[in-house]
Amino acid sequence: MQRLSQLTLHLSQAPTGNSLATTQSSKPTPPSADHNDPANTNTTLTMAKTKIVVTRQLFDEAQSLLDAQVGELELVQWQSAKPCDRSWLLENAQGATGILVMLTDKVDEELLTAAGDQLKAIASFSVGTDHVDRAALKKRNIRLGYTPTCLTDAVADLTVMLILMAQRRGGESIAAVVKGDWPQMAWHPLLMTGPQIRGTTVGFLGFGRIAQASLHRLLPFGIKRVLYLTSKPGQPVKEDHFGLLKDPSIPIEPATSADQLASESDIVIVGCALTPSTKHIISTDFFSKMKKLAVIVNIARGPVIDTEALVKALDEGQIFGAGLDVIENEPNIQADHPILKQPRCVLVPHIGSATIETRQQMATESVKNLLAGLTGEAMVNELDL
Amino acid sequence: MQRLSQLTLHLSQAPTGNSLATTQSSKPTPPSADHNDPANTNTTLTMAKTKIVVTRQLFDEAQSLLDAQVGELELVQWQSAKPCDRSWLLENAQGATGILVMLTDKVDEELLTAAGDQLKAIASFSVGTDHVDRAALKKRNIRLGYTPTCLTDAVADLTVMLILMAQRRGGESIAAVVKGDWPQMAWHPLLMTGPQIRGTTVGFLGFGRIAQASLHRLLPFGIKRVLYLTSKPGQPVKEDHFGLLKDPSIPIEPATSADQLASESDIVIVGCALTPSTKHIISTDFFSKMKKLAVIVNIARGPVIDTEALVKALDEGQIFGAGLDVIENEPNIQADHPILKQPRCVLVPHIGSATIETRQQMATESVKNLLAGLTGEAMVNELDL
Repeated sequence: MQRLSQLTLHLSQAPTGNSLATTQSSKPTPPSADHNDPANTNTTLTMAKTKIVVTRQLFDEAQSLLDAQVGELELVQWQSAKPCDRSWLLENAQGATGILVMLTDKVDEELLTAAGDQLKAIASFSVGTDHVDRAALKKRNIRLGYTPTCLTDAVADLTVMLILMAQRRGGESIAAVVKGDWPQMAWHPLLMTGPQIRGTTVGFLGFGRIAQASLHRLLPFGIKRVLYLTSKPGQPVKEDHFGLLKDPSIPIEPATSADQLASESDIVIVGCALTPSTKHIISTDFFSKMKKLAVIVNIARGPVIDTEALVKALDEGQIFGAGLDVIENEPNIQADHPILKQPRCVLVPHIGSATIETRQQMATESVKNLLAGLTGEAMVNELDL
Repeated sequence: MQRLSQLTLHLSQAPTGNSLATTQSSKPTPPSADHNDPANTNTTLTMAKTKIVVTRQLFDEAQSLLDAQVGELELVQWQSAKPCDRSWLLENAQGATGILVMLTDKVDEELLTAAGDQLKAIASFSVGTDHVDRAALKKRNIRLGYTPTCLTDAVADLTVMLILMAQRRGGESIAAVVKGDWPQMAWHPLLMTGPQIRGTTVGFLGFGRIAQASLHRLLPFGIKRVLYLTSKPGQPVKEDHFGLLKDPSIPIEPATSADQLASESDIVIVGCALTPSTKHIISTDFFSKMKKLAVIVNIARGPVIDTEALVKALDEGQIFGAGLDVIENEPNIQADHPILKQPRCVLVPHIGSATIETRQQMATESVKNLLAGLTGEAMVNELDL
């Protein structure tokens, strides 16, 4: 943890930061990882070794797991802190049996063809797999590992943060202080007030593991009722991930319609998958049925909420506030985007899974998936193609 | 709630906003409350009525309680949404038996003398009573009511928000999005990452009702150990406000020193009273012993933390982040204050109790305290002078 903490403290959001590469330069570099001299890549290796390609430097446990394989495997690893160059990947994929990719690396016919017929496994350091052409993998019998389960805590924590920021006017009050407005704020009994969690009805759109983990956290805040809407309105969900659904102290019920969810919830949490039927399901119609002191939080996918409708609902005071980890067209949100003019909306840059612990675990699971893919063993999480 | 929600939606932080007065102008105004014509104040009342002065318009239940007394009592009430003028208060206090004040109204010899010997009770719409000269009240046998108990939920909720914002880089990530930086952020496994709550040791400085309410909320986030430091180091606290202290699932122990609290906690929560011995107890020395991935949250009083030391600790990466509801010299925090240059620190303008529900309850309890003070009955909360 110590080494990682140093890394983290130095890493900023600077788009071109290369402190990771710098920090790790003192580590012995496997000979095959020297991409600065591609001609040298294979010279020290016997022809019999199985080749794996990794498009990032990893950290701590994950990198150790990889490094421990260097005697057995040929490891080719991208060294810079910037995302992997496509041309480097296409060149080095040739002859690889397994490739560990980030969500910034497209896995498509071009890459699979460049790799060749011996390719057995892709391990993606990600929850989503939109960057992967699954049909192309299936056709070639290539296995796909991913890391969907280790971010529950990180996203559920962020959900609670966004609810509180939407209710307690977090963005607005921080901005006022930063602007230097605090000295001029005249005290008033309703100054900077918002609704609170105790006594609320919480409505979940989608009620999977992350939604239930969020509910678990909200119980001691004193919520009084829970509604959830899934693709089967009115039907109880089957998976009770944390043993909450039989809690006798609070009613937890399936909603029969989006209208019911909108009109009865004080806090709406969007946690469903993005599908053709959920795209823009949160619309002007939905907002018009919400309570004026209600807040909405989106930790799922941007397009589930119609952004224009949200801006309008905030403008017109149809809802109290919003907290968004995701938004349509992200990351292309310019400083003049209308949502950024809404004082009652906070928008963070898709940091749901951005905790050190989660990213460590995603890295470790990705390496395990990669290695399992080479030997035919069970992956930690494998997508059924 | 509907009327209040309208109020809230229209109220902004604008220092001179007068929407409250406007919104309430359609309500029948008690004759005695017409401060636009001071000469008219007493004309419709019999001389025998007991006079009460209220330095704010209240809302909903609290105002109804007051209004219901108008037949029995002479009610003189400040009408504007701005804080009450001192000269108006001194003039109208004359002959009052009870006065309901805000924390912006100084209760001192001058006011008590202006009121006269018949004054029996002050009801303060506040938790703190620093604005009240308690010795002066005691000398005159005047009772003091206040509202300390109804803000526990509001402050505990905000505590969790500030912890999450400090860990998850809330201020920094919102600022980056508002600035238009999101499109240029290159994805990286450690981009915008911070520590998470699961597995942490939480250290409380002060372990009263609000601290314990915060602990209650943190349990399902997966904290693994709790330390608390009170004025009696090493000794177990007596008051177990929520039945948590005997929870067998997690060790909850008194710390023996500030050093232990600093060095073993991943999250430090400052929730103690401000006294000569707690002023600047969080100092350079304390920060130097904290973990590099730890965060600190202050929901108590600003001067408990030495602000210069905090700025230095953040500058030098001695701690990961901070979340502050209070700060030394508030509200005089100008835009060039050094704390506002720290990306890993969020500062909100003392909004701990700023929920609609809390302020409603504070208003109602203030009126009850005032009325009890007139009749000699028990107040909801009375300060022992």
